[in-house]
Amino acid sequence: MADKAAVILLSGGLDSATTLAIARDEGYVCHCLSVDYGQRHRAELDAASNVANALGAVAHRVLQLDLTAFGGSALTDSSLAVPTTPSTGIPITYVPARNTIMLSLALAWSEVLNAQNIFIGANAVDYSGYPDCRPAFIEAFEQLANLATKAAIEGSRCHIHAPLIHLSKAQIIQQGHRLGVDYGMTVSCYQADAKGRACGECDSCRLRQRGFKEAGIPDPTHYLLRK
Amino acid sequence: MADKAAVILLSGGLDSATTLAIARDEGYVCHCLSVDYGQRHRAELDAASNVANALGAVAHRVLQLDLTAFGGSALTDSSLAVPTTPSTGIPITYVPARNTIMLSLALAWSEVLNAQNIFIGANAVDYSGYPDCRPAFIEAFEQLANLATKAAIEGSRCHIHAPLIHLSKAQIIQQGHRLGVDYGMTVSCYQADAKGRACGECDSCRLRQRGFKEAGIPDPTHYLLRK
Repeated sequence: MADKAAVILLSGGLDSATTLAIARDEGYVCHCLSVDYGQRHRAELDAASNVANALGAVAHRVLQLDLTAFGGSALTDSSLAVPTTPSTGIPITYVPARNTIMLSLALAWSEVLNAQNIFIGANAVDYSGYPDCRPAFIEAFEQLANLATKAAIEGSRCHIHAPLIHLSKAQIIQQGHRLGVDYGMTVSCYQADAKGRACGECDSCRLRQRGFKEAGIPDPTHYLLRK
Repeated sequence: MADKAAVILLSGGLDSATTLAIARDEGYVCHCLSVDYGQRHRAELDAASNVANALGAVAHRVLQLDLTAFGGSALTDSSLAVPTTPSTGIPITYVPARNTIMLSLALAWSEVLNAQNIFIGANAVDYSGYPDCRPAFIEAFEQLANLATKAAIEGSRCHIHAPLIHLSKAQIIQQGHRLGVDYGMTVSCYQADAKGRACGECDSCRLRQRGFKEAGIPDPTHYLLRK
């Protein structure tokens, strides 16, 4: 495997699609990983597959991991509703330890591929207050990764790239736009329907709408209800 | 959930059974987590269920996560044979990032349970040289856990307990024996048959056999071939 091989965590949303485009633009050979964790918005997995194809990934794997066994989030427990008004604090759409789990799985695959790079679309600016999207979390995971594997013991260094971490949603959209990302393919809505049409009301939809507006770029999102 | 709630990673082997017995002895209310990751030695999952019952766990969940999608280990790739002679370096039974993945899943469940304690049977003495069984790895994971979750942000501290980490296999067996663990129920062999009978030849069997011998305790393991 070339030095420039990378595993890209790809959810099918706006941020991870942009992350893939950035990794490709930087010359990485991209292996995309999606996780079917029982999320409410399963249309994003179809979106991930389309995005991986469109942006030239050499591989795309979808792992099954049923986090509904734990619940504890509006995304993994159907008895908890997705909020459609802004909330204070960390919202109920937070999935316990999700990014820790995703990065662990990416670490496993990267070790098998002999790849030293993992990309994640975590973002600490226009985000929902999730703890596992902060720079300190990403740094702690990189430290862990460099103790956790046989590859690390043998001297291979693992780099966790979070190229969006300090960007606003508008800046992310502008960067992706420059790199040719078709955001009409991506699904960010927490309760998108089977065709990937967005509610326009949840946190994720609101952040995305505001991002396109501030970026001055037409919003190509397919909405269920045009308001 | 009481302060003394804990998630115990339970593989069905000797070490994790002892870890569960220690957690119970220390007064923890034990929620056991096993992962069906496509391992060759699936009999250990039945063993885990029996052990959880016998040692008074209040819950036992088995998560499905197909790590054969990545391969890279004799335990998750049926084309790689389990070695039956001692090897140098980290053996091919090492599963990439396994303990990172297991601890991530335990972290997710512990957050949902509002439990602040996770137990893992990692051991850095009589082990196979796995990188993710070292104290530095466990410490790095605890640091990560205390940045990763909503619970951590809200001031709840997560403790990763690895009570076996500095014990020899013989000491582990002696401690479990004192606590009433029935090791005949546990399966350590990497290629146990469907009934949990051990090969007696793999690394894991050899470490276990030597442990009973050094502990001066009769070995209750069910072997396929008595040598």
